Amino acid sequence: MEIEKLKILLEQVKGGEIAVDDALQSLRILPFEDLGFSKIDHHRQLRTGFPEVIFCQGKTVEQVKQISERILAAGHPLLATRATPEMYKAVKEVQPAARYNELGRTITVSRSEEDAGVSGILIVSAGTSDLPVAEEAAETALMMGNQPERLYDVGVAGLHRLISNHEKLLNARVIIVVAGMEGALPSVVGGLVDCPVIAVPTSIGYGASFGGLAALLGMLNSCASGVTVVNIDNGFGAGYSAALINRLSA
Amino acid sequence: MEIEKLKILLEQVKGGEIAVDDALQSLRILPFEDLGFSKIDHHRQLRTGFPEVIFCQGKTVEQVKQISERILAAGHPLLATRATPEMYKAVKEVQPAARYNELGRTITVSRSEEDAGVSGILIVSAGTSDLPVAEEAAETALMMGNQPERLYDVGVAGLHRLISNHEKLLNARVIIVVAGMEGALPSVVGGLVDCPVIAVPTSIGYGASFGGLAALLGMLNSCASGVTVVNIDNGFGAGYSAALINRLSA
Amino acid sequence: MEIEKLKILLEQVKGGEIAVDDALQSLRILPFEDLGFSKIDHHRQLRTGFPEVIFCQGKTVEQVKQISERILAAGHPLLATRATPEMYKAVKEVQPAARYNELGRTITVSRSEEDAGVSGILIVSAGTSDLPVAEEAAETALMMGNQPERLYDVGVAGLHRLISNHEKLLNARVIIVVAGMEGALPSVVGGLVDCPVIAVPTSIGYGASFGGLAALLGMLNSCASGVTVVNIDNGFGAGYSAALINRLSA
Amino acid sequence: MEIEKLKILLEQVKGGEIAVDDALQSLRILPFEDLGFSKIDHHRQLRTGFPEVIFCQGKTVEQVKQISERILAAGHPLLATRATPEMYKAVKEVQPAARYNELGRTITVSRSEEDAGVSGILIVSAGTSDLPVAEEAAETALMMGNQPERLYDVGVAGLHRLISNHEKLLNARVIIVVAGMEGALPSVVGGLVDCPVIAVPTSIGYGASFGGLAALLGMLNSCASGVTVVNIDNGFGAGYSAALINRLSA
Amino acid sequence: MEIEKLKILLEQVKGGEIAVDDALQSLRILPFEDLGFSKIDHHRQLRTGFPEVIFCQGKTVEQVKQISERILAAGHPLLATRATPEMYKAVKEVQPAARYNELGRTITVSRSEEDAGVSGILIVSAGTSDLPVAEEAAETALMMGNQPERLYDVGVAGLHRLISNHEKLLNARVIIVVAGMEGALPSVVGGLVDCPVIAVPTSIGYGASFGGLAALLGMLNSCASGVTVVNIDNGFGAGYSAALINRLSA
Amino acid sequence: MEIEKLKILLEQVKGGEIAVDDALQSLRILPFEDLGFSKIDHHRQLRTGFPEVIFCQGKTVEQVKQISERILAAGHPLLATRATPEMYKAVKEVQPAARYNELGRTITVSRSEEDAGVSGILIVSAGTSDLPVAEEAAETALMMGNQPERLYDVGVAGLHRLISNHEKLLNARVIIVVAGMEGALPSVVGGLVDCPVIAVPTSIGYGASFGGLAALLGMLNSCASGVTVVNIDNGFGAGYSAALINRLSA
Amino acid sequence: MEIEKLKILLEQVKGGEIAVDDALQSLRILPFEDLGFSKIDHHRQLRTGFPEVIFCQGKTVEQVKQISERILAAGHPLLATRATPEMYKAVKEVQPAARYNELGRTITVSRSEEDAGVSGILIVSAGTSDLPVAEEAAETALMMGNQPERLYDVGVAGLHRLISNHEKLLNARVIIVVAGMEGALPSVVGGLVDCPVIAVPTSIGYGASFGGLAALLGMLNSCASGVTVVNIDNGFGAGYSAALINRLSA
Amino acid sequence: MEIEKLKILLEQVKGGEIAVDDALQSLRILPFEDLGFSKIDHHRQLRTGFPEVIFCQGKTVEQVKQISERILAAGHPLLATRATPEMYKAVKEVQPAARYNELGRTITVSRSEEDAGVSGILIVSAGTSDLPVAEEAAETALMMGNQPERLYDVGVAGLHRLISNHEKLLNARVIIVVAGMEGALPSVVGGLVDCPVIAVPTSIGYGASFGGLAALLGMLNSCASGVTVVNIDNGFGAGYSAALINRLSA
Repeated sequence: MEIEKLKILLEQVKGGEIAVDDALQSLRILPFEDLGFSKIDHHRQLRTGFPEVIFCQGKTVEQVKQISERILAAGHPLLATRATPEMYKAVKEVQPAARYNELGRTITVSRSEEDAGVSGILIVSAGTSDLPVAEEAAETALMMGNQPERLYDVGVAGLHRLISNHEKLLNARVIIVVAGMEGALPSVVGGLVDCPVIAVPTSIGYGASFGGLAALLGMLNSCASGVTVVNIDNGFGAGYSAALINRLSA
Repeated sequence: MEIEKLKILLEQVKGGEIAVDDALQSLRILPFEDLGFSKIDHHRQLRTGFPEVIFCQGKTVEQVKQISERILAAGHPLLATRATPEMYKAVKEVQPAARYNELGRTITVSRSEEDAGVSGILIVSAGTSDLPVAEEAAETALMMGNQPERLYDVGVAGLHRLISNHEKLLNARVIIVVAGMEGALPSVVGGLVDCPVIAVPTSIGYGASFGGLAALLGMLNSCASGVTVVNIDNGFGAGYSAALINRLSA
Repeated sequence: MEIEKLKILLEQVKGGEIAVDDALQSLRILPFEDLGFSKIDHHRQLRTGFPEVIFCQGKTVEQVKQISERILAAGHPLLATRATPEMYKAVKEVQPAARYNELGRTITVSRSEEDAGVSGILIVSAGTSDLPVAEEAAETALMMGNQPERLYDVGVAGLHRLISNHEKLLNARVIIVVAGMEGALPSVVGGLVDCPVIAVPTSIGYGASFGGLAALLGMLNSCASGVTVVNIDNGFGAGYSAALINRLSA
Repeated sequence: MEIEKLKILLEQVKGGEIAVDDALQSLRILPFEDLGFSKIDHHRQLRTGFPEVIFCQGKTVEQVKQISERILAAGHPLLATRATPEMYKAVKEVQPAARYNELGRTITVSRSEEDAGVSGILIVSAGTSDLPVAEEAAETALMMGNQPERLYDVGVAGLHRLISNHEKLLNARVIIVVAGMEGALPSVVGGLVDCPVIAVPTSIGYGASFGGLAALLGMLNSCASGVTVVNIDNGFGAGYSAALINRLSA
Repeated sequence: MEIEKLKILLEQVKGGEIAVDDALQSLRILPFEDLGFSKIDHHRQLRTGFPEVIFCQGKTVEQVKQISERILAAGHPLLATRATPEMYKAVKEVQPAARYNELGRTITVSRSEEDAGVSGILIVSAGTSDLPVAEEAAETALMMGNQPERLYDVGVAGLHRLISNHEKLLNARVIIVVAGMEGALPSVVGGLVDCPVIAVPTSIGYGASFGGLAALLGMLNSCASGVTVVNIDNGFGAGYSAALINRLSA
Repeated sequence: MEIEKLKILLEQVKGGEIAVDDALQSLRILPFEDLGFSKIDHHRQLRTGFPEVIFCQGKTVEQVKQISERILAAGHPLLATRATPEMYKAVKEVQPAARYNELGRTITVSRSEEDAGVSGILIVSAGTSDLPVAEEAAETALMMGNQPERLYDVGVAGLHRLISNHEKLLNARVIIVVAGMEGALPSVVGGLVDCPVIAVPTSIGYGASFGGLAALLGMLNSCASGVTVVNIDNGFGAGYSAALINRLSA
Repeated sequence: MEIEKLKILLEQVKGGEIAVDDALQSLRILPFEDLGFSKIDHHRQLRTGFPEVIFCQGKTVEQVKQISERILAAGHPLLATRATPEMYKAVKEVQPAARYNELGRTITVSRSEEDAGVSGILIVSAGTSDLPVAEEAAETALMMGNQPERLYDVGVAGLHRLISNHEKLLNARVIIVVAGMEGALPSVVGGLVDCPVIAVPTSIGYGASFGGLAALLGMLNSCASGVTVVNIDNGFGAGYSAALINRLSA
Repeated sequence: MEIEKLKILLEQVKGGEIAVDDALQSLRILPFEDLGFSKIDHHRQLRTGFPEVIFCQGKTVEQVKQISERILAAGHPLLATRATPEMYKAVKEVQPAARYNELGRTITVSRSEEDAGVSGILIVSAGTSDLPVAEEAAETALMMGNQPERLYDVGVAGLHRLISNHEKLLNARVIIVVAGMEGALPSVVGGLVDCPVIAVPTSIGYGASFGGLAALLGMLNSCASGVTVVNIDNGFGAGYSAALINRLSA
């Protein structure tokens, strides 16, 4: 129906009843749900350059394949998180160039193959069990135009491994810290740097870890300033936020 | 001072007063932190330019006064959070230029009076009860060299107030969203913008709000990408992180 | 039947076959529920016109089949929730007209095939993962004589999709809002309409969603007035309550 | 700025450049955040006829007084919840006709003194300690044009008190059930009636009641169909929703 | 009274003044609770012989006084729990014979002064801090016709104190075990005896005691058979249940 | 055996073969448990007449079989709870007279086939899903010499089913009430009777039932006096306690 | 005393005044705890040399004074924890030599004034707000014959302060680590040393610290081996355990 | 290697090849961790003599095999916890001398076959279901040079079994107490001994055990002094800490 109103406005322009500039002005203020909001949304897509994302958990292989087909057919890059090898196999049939990060459980199809990526994001993880979440963050950042650096297996119980890499820490513009169990690493990292730190609690642990709750609470109560937190195991969210932050420094 | 000790040691090596192996042994037990860590810490202070902060909650008026004296005597700027009017009165005796934000419960003494501040930080709050936390964030950002913009009382139950300010949202480089009760505002804001959003749950609410837990969980589970979270009522932490992020765009 | 016993007793009193005091004694020990409660219960069935419901979860295929047979043999309509395809297959053997809503996991057999249904109920859902619960609500409302309208996939992170359908929102007499993760949608919908809103938290999410707890708490703490809440994933309960409410406007 | 566009449009109408009907049409499609949303909001106000509400908890006497003054000056009715006697005294100075419900802790100033109110809402409470919440619900319903009936102190441990009032239960169009401790009353009431039941858990209890959590969980898990739940102690929310529902039957 | 109405009705049937069908109709709408329920309730009062109980917490001194007056005027015995010394003073003005258990915070007025009481109930407590709850249980049992024996301060960390009293344990017919902190005592007692054990968790403790939650969970998970549990600090409930059990052995 | 050692010692004292002080010393280090504790334990076994119990959950079929063999070889009766059909098959090979309660998941071998059992225990359950727990309680009571009566499927949402059986309720000496979801049934039953009520929360429910937590909290907060609670799904514990209580009335 | 009774019995056996079988019977019913348990308890007191402890929280000044008097009159040393200045004043009247640790809230009276104390215990704390708990631990260790070393204010956000004291860490035989907020310090310390670490979570923090729960969970999930945990704020328990451990190395 | 670099530098200083100030500068930027931290870490390995540990849960058989190969190739002893029989089979292929503790789910390869081990550690467990955790603790202690004694199946509901072994309790230098359900055993043991007690809650239990939370809270709130706690099911951590403590007494 709004289309009708639009048509009328254009007829007025055609009949000289309204100046082109005025009509343009009117168009800008037309109910944004038709012209405005989607424009915002469009702008957002354009500016973030971010691909559509498929959260595969709870979806069937067939569903993932179909959604991937639709996204790729539209010429969009693809990021599928929490993807199983079976899902990858199915997507690969659609697009042979699809890449699978086994550790991070992500399927990706880049817009441009030769995208070097921007530096500045450092991904730090505490233990080897935290790697899937760290890699999910890495792939997300990668898909948003970054070339994230990795610093893995530097948990607080072996502090020297972390400290011997303090150059990397100091050079980063934004740091993602992934840790399970007591989730203490973001506090230690946060105390060593002066850039934003995004903490990702993981569900790694047992007993009183309560599925990552211990790490989550630890990170929220961090005594280090400059630390913000995302949901348990939310590597995607951390990578996304880090990319938004790093883009500011471009 | 350790540098002096080190210099003396090297002079002794140079002068043959001490054998290389003995010097080696001494170097191995030299407190390494004096070589490296304190430097890191020093750098950090220099680069962040952030004042020392007093978390007043649980401290006596006398304690706040004394710590303030020490900080000001050292020529540092001052930020005291969760400060009572009595504490302000006491600090004002020490430094008449001290400023009190009654709503945000902060006492501040700036290094430079004429610091215009960098734009880019927008602080959004849901209800009037969330203002103390929002103002704490604002004062923190201010002390770190920013001129934060405020957009208050735009809760999700009256969406039009938020949407009629979407220009402000789109112009921000980093947005702090403060909300209690169900904590839905960061999700809505996060869906409208493409910059980093820092969500601050507040303890505003009653019953099943469980002291801010409902808002905290809501924000951690936000369906909008680009949202990270700080502790309940942690306006300071949000302001600090926002300042770190905004500095990247300078 | 108790009525018959009672009538006989009264006839005996009338005929002098039984003394008043003896009759009195008999009346006092007559199961009172047969005089009052079962009537209430009967009335209730008559007025709600609601079919018996089978909650299939935790039941075997054979059990579901047998209960369905008994219900259908009694001439009642059938609503089975949380039903698997296997259960549907078994019920279909009993009654070929049985219908299966794969998404909503419901098996239904209507009393009357040509029941157009009353309009007025709108079912809104946030994400595609919330559809099973939304469809369970829809089928329940349908079985109670309604023709519910659906407005799916309008989560708060993409507000324009919701707002572009505000006509539907304004035309509804009662709205069911189904959402997982942070559960913010009912607050937004509640702020746009002036009809009762029934919020259904779903267990969709991960990490600090804690099986739907985050959404549940969010909805209970909604800053929008006019929102009431049912149990996590309780599409049936929402559909039932909405039907009771919508019947009032008939 | 939108005002400017509006002015231009009107000028065009004045100059005959655009027909009144077309201008009207244009006005309807002007960005709703300026004309549309507030219109929705306006409609909402008009239709609900609901006064502005002050949630007094956490506000000072002075703040409550000032907000009340502003509301009353605008000619609106007034509902203040969680109000102390001191707050009432202060509001009474502003408006001598203000009424205080000591039990329900509400201050009210009605638009019209002689508003008889619509019947249909029944408020049931379990124990005398639940009365403040029940009365808050009653006053809210009253302010929205209802004449709620009360049925108090009919907890499940003395079932006969409830059952001896089953006529009241059966005559209601919507029932609010207020209960603390185990919160069992809504289940029992829900099993006796076929109208919508709004359950309000209260924080009454001790030990493992955990501030109303026990009652809240009990109500959410009610085995009776047709029961929806609001936040702990949220008498206002229950009264508001009940009023929205009862208006449907008008 | 209803009995009278009923008798009149039957007489009318007998005398032919009213038709059987009309009588039938009248009987169907006779409030059934008047025939059955109130009788049950009445029996219950008679058989338990239990006084009315005032839960003083959250009540004013004046309220406690007034309720006490009403109960005593009706010739009932009185049990007021969680009573302050001020409340006692007020009740003593009404009835000088009122007795105050300072430790158990109970006010009691017995029906008969010379009631020796039945033996069989043993009340065991872990620490001196648990005594208020233990005494509340003792006074409740006393008011229900028992002469409870006490065995206090026999916590599990000093097992010999408990074991040196095993005769008392073996002679009891029902044992109330009151304990805070880890709540281990009921398991130990339950392993030594073959009579029913009622466990009462108390809110004594700090930190991870979480207001008695630790003790409550401990008791619910007791590895000893024959242990049942009441709410945290619910000395009254334990005393009441113990009295019901002990009456069975009379 | 220790008795023999003790006797020899005393004979030696008597015969002057050992000095009094040496005997004293020996007595002090005699394992005290042999003098006292094992006697207590023995007495306990004799008096309760209770069979050894196998909690099968988490055990292998082979383990259950072997433990059963050992118990039966010792001439003891057998009660195995949470037993699978496979376990039953294995036990049946050992003892063909073994009986399996499929619903209650118990395997039993009675000492005496013709044990009529004592009446007095009534087991009430809310829904059909609660039957396994109710039956576990029933079998436990049976093994301890009782003939428990059953009153199943009388949930609070259909109160008339419960009330029409009030004779059964009034005749019981101890009542076990099994309920999931909101766990309201014990409160209702507790309000109708004056005998001890043992409440058993079950894990039946979904969403905010949190594995039986809602029912557990509901029962602990029961507004009816005389209700005690056991662990979630602990039918065995309830049956055991009920048997201990009922034995008191013998 | 029981020993005397026993001796008399044996003398009677020896003198033939009592038959062996009768003596046997007497021995069987002699309270075994008098033979065994109290001895154990006595040994324990002797070996630990630990004073009686008064947990003052929840006690009145008068109660603390009286218990102190009794302990001191018995010639025992005194340790009172969670003591207020008023309590100290009262105890000082009884024993002028009493010492008050204002920070640790302890009152102590030593057995011997000149007890140098054993080295080996190091108490590490994260922030200044954790000092009361750290000092409570220190005083407890002191009273058990230790000379604890303190290393305060070395939280993980300023790692260099901790590391510059690594000599102290390496020299300790047992380390108590006191920390609130995220409770990360024990993990870091545990990774630097090879001696037992006792972690004490404190209730310092706000929001999602949930009264020390965050720190407690963090410490229980420590990725460093050799860390055990005590209750929130339980400085006494940590000091006691550390003293028991340190005594092993004597 | 850094030592070599350092030596060369010093030689250059000595030889005048490099100025003191330049050497100073070089020293300041030498990675401090190479001077200090790695040494600490090295010392730690040497002193603890502890093998590397593989936490097998969540790892594949292949991963466990490969890590084992690497550890064994380096000449280290091996401890793999939470290992399945399949993992053992795979490790056995690498090292035929590998030993599997089926109950404790550990794979071990000792450095020296003939290591008698130090006595002093006693491992106490409550029920047979707690044995896997107890055995994990035992194997860990064994690998650290101890010969732990076991005292199993001595739960608090059968106290005589524990007390008849009090000699073992009194002879221990450190006791590990493993218990599920209510977790009361550490309190009882702690009251009988004067050595450090390490409590290990297990996830054994059901219903309100909440996966070991009940036992954990119980142990943290132990009324016995000298008890510290590790994470739920953390047998490894308890064994490790006990070994560190027992080494102090060597």
